Amino acid sequence: MRAEIIAVGTELLLGQIVNTNAQYLSRGLAELGIDVYYQTVVGDNEERLKQAIAIGRERADLLVFTGGLGPTMDDLTRDALAAYLGRGIVLHEPTMNKITEMFASRGGSFVESNRRQALLVEGATPLRNDTGLAVGNALSVDGTHYLLLPGPPREMKPMFQNDGSTWLKQIVGPAETLHSVMLKFAGIGESGLEDLLIDLIRAQADPTIAPYAQEGEVTIRVSTKASSEQEAASKLEGTLIEIRKRTEAHLYAEENIPIEVAIIRLLTAQRRTVTLAESCTGGMVSQLMTTVPGSADAFVGGVVSYSNQLKHLALNVPMSMLEGTDAPGAVSGETAIAMAEGMRATVDSDFAISITGVAGPASSEGKPVGLVYIGIAERNKVTRVEQLQLSGDREGIRIRAAKRALYTLWLALTGRG
Amino acid sequence: MRAEIIAVGTELLLGQIVNTNAQYLSRGLAELGIDVYYQTVVGDNEERLKQAIAIGRERADLLVFTGGLGPTMDDLTRDALAAYLGRGIVLHEPTMNKITEMFASRGGSFVESNRRQALLVEGATPLRNDTGLAVGNALSVDGTHYLLLPGPPREMKPMFQNDGSTWLKQIVGPAETLHSVMLKFAGIGESGLEDLLIDLIRAQADPTIAPYAQEGEVTIRVSTKASSEQEAASKLEGTLIEIRKRTEAHLYAEENIPIEVAIIRLLTAQRRTVTLAESCTGGMVSQLMTTVPGSADAFVGGVVSYSNQLKHLALNVPMSMLEGTDAPGAVSGETAIAMAEGMRATVDSDFAISITGVAGPASSEGKPVGLVYIGIAERNKVTRVEQLQLSGDREGIRIRAAKRALYTLWLALTGRG
Repeated sequence: MRAEIIAVGTELLLGQIVNTNAQYLSRGLAELGIDVYYQTVVGDNEERLKQAIAIGRERADLLVFTGGLGPTMDDLTRDALAAYLGRGIVLHEPTMNKITEMFASRGGSFVESNRRQALLVEGATPLRNDTGLAVGNALSVDGTHYLLLPGPPREMKPMFQNDGSTWLKQIVGPAETLHSVMLKFAGIGESGLEDLLIDLIRAQADPTIAPYAQEGEVTIRVSTKASSEQEAASKLEGTLIEIRKRTEAHLYAEENIPIEVAIIRLLTAQRRTVTLAESCTGGMVSQLMTTVPGSADAFVGGVVSYSNQLKHLALNVPMSMLEGTDAPGAVSGETAIAMAEGMRATVDSDFAISITGVAGPASSEGKPVGLVYIGIAERNKVTRVEQLQLSGDREGIRIRAAKRALYTLWLALTGRG
Repeated sequence: MRAEIIAVGTELLLGQIVNTNAQYLSRGLAELGIDVYYQTVVGDNEERLKQAIAIGRERADLLVFTGGLGPTMDDLTRDALAAYLGRGIVLHEPTMNKITEMFASRGGSFVESNRRQALLVEGATPLRNDTGLAVGNALSVDGTHYLLLPGPPREMKPMFQNDGSTWLKQIVGPAETLHSVMLKFAGIGESGLEDLLIDLIRAQADPTIAPYAQEGEVTIRVSTKASSEQEAASKLEGTLIEIRKRTEAHLYAEENIPIEVAIIRLLTAQRRTVTLAESCTGGMVSQLMTTVPGSADAFVGGVVSYSNQLKHLALNVPMSMLEGTDAPGAVSGETAIAMAEGMRATVDSDFAISITGVAGPASSEGKPVGLVYIGIAERNKVTRVEQLQLSGDREGIRIRAAKRALYTLWLALTGRG
């Protein structure tokens, strides 16, 4: 079944809010085995809304609407659909009773426009609203299915999960549901990963293999349709084994988690600790580590040694290494090593990672923008350093340096570093 | 001029990412006086993309695409538009040179698929990509205008702001342009700000007053249409004076900058320095400060004292204050003061800000989630501390605590603290 999500609201077209409903519904429909082919946003305008319905009917079997069920004159979804289908509007008595009771209990005077929230397109199944007043609508006409949900996420989500899903399962029938495994990679770009897997990606049919890139990490989604978890697992197995074999040094998780979560889990399981000495990333790696609840046992803390003064005072990097004509300078392999060792020594952590580089926009110490050194000090091991030349703007370089530092730590924790 | 935003990417239809680009572009187009009538999302499928173009052409004068300009086989926007228009594809030599140079400088082998990022629809104006490789496309054919931007926000935004806006201003012509002033507020919520300005907001006609909230800060956009900067300034003046008068202790900028930029400017102008001692925010404030280019003179650095061990060793907080049955504990006003004073003493900075609190999800030291202390140590002043009870999830609490700490510093820097 092909679906289109139609969000109704001028506030979306003005950019006042982000269409998070579309993401939520896309995921929810995928889990029901329904493919979303389009998402559309249209303003609070009956004519344009009717046109969007006409277009949607041509290219989808199911139209899921959000928004336009509220009490104001701008709330037009129900009216537009009724007009488009040539149907009437009827009052849903239970909702009307709920609305009048609500106003009575609040002691407020009933505002007539609220009556609109109890209206249904003629023939529609009402969908209960547990967290608001507007009743949802579900109906099937001439082979097209229409699901009308409220706009506010806190009303839309429970309605979709409850009456909405029940109704959708009926119209989908006992079809096959989509099962996916998310593979997460670090230390490799999207194109590098595609090179490793190009023949699999070219030949894909079932399971499907879909790569996509975020800042500093790459995800591949391997999916198949199946009627049970077990059937899905056996259909996915061969592809997963092959991908694992080829990407072993980069595949840090088989679920949708960022690398910092994988790292905190490894540190916790190994009862080891890490500290951070950050210069150009300015606290970004620490911040990422501490997004993870329960990270306190594994992540001791760190120093954001943005100035040479603090590199010296907090991390014991010799001033002679940092400043002077013949000194290696703050952005150097020597300083990265000294930062990591100085940090590790402070609290005797199992690991310390250091990052120093030129994030730009201007070069520094005569060194080019994007030059970054990552140091890793590990108990009973020789401290290592890695030199990188990263591209991008200031923020891009910082993010890539931070993610690369996490990848370096992951390699060490998995015995690859 | 009527515009439609067409986002291309199966990851959007699967709900893997939110279409924040549509919001960004909707706002940006509104500022240029261009009305967005539709937003569409379509997958990485050439046939459906061509159909979306055909529909867009019927109902809009300008189609703004995001996504599908990257190196992989899934990146089809350029090809689909060329096929739809019956045009060829040509190589943009400067971009190709940039790509080969980038690979050469990295010492990596050139991956052939990257060549795709240098391709243009025949006759298109190339749009510079300052933060990535894929070149943008802009062209007008038979009265319809097409603007092709990359999908990753960090490439799309600068391209839209630079070459994209320049090209759009040409095609819009010298119509009445929307002129806006962005007012940025900290230390106050959206509803608090609305209370201060409710009569102005209710009575608004021209200029319009549009408030919207982000995490930890609030923006008000005051707008009018005018044919010159001068005319706009005189139309906006009265409203701005009144808003300034009422919101003086919260209005930190009259341009769209985050508070950390305002702070770095104030510190730099006053030749003063700051250090940070962060616990529950885990480096977030440091990270925000260092997003600002040139922050190194004002921001000396900091300590992410996530553990008691580091609070003691790096910041000299007495262990007797942190641990023991009668101790105030890590989350306390006493510790916030000791952290700030210990941090300031390390490098003798003009200010040190400390943050310690319970970000959750679990309570800590028997203290409730959301309890946060912010300390501020200032040269020649008594150290002050502020106790907050913040709401939200872990990330929400951390962001609000970080923004509040920045607001505290801003108050001190502007003589209000």
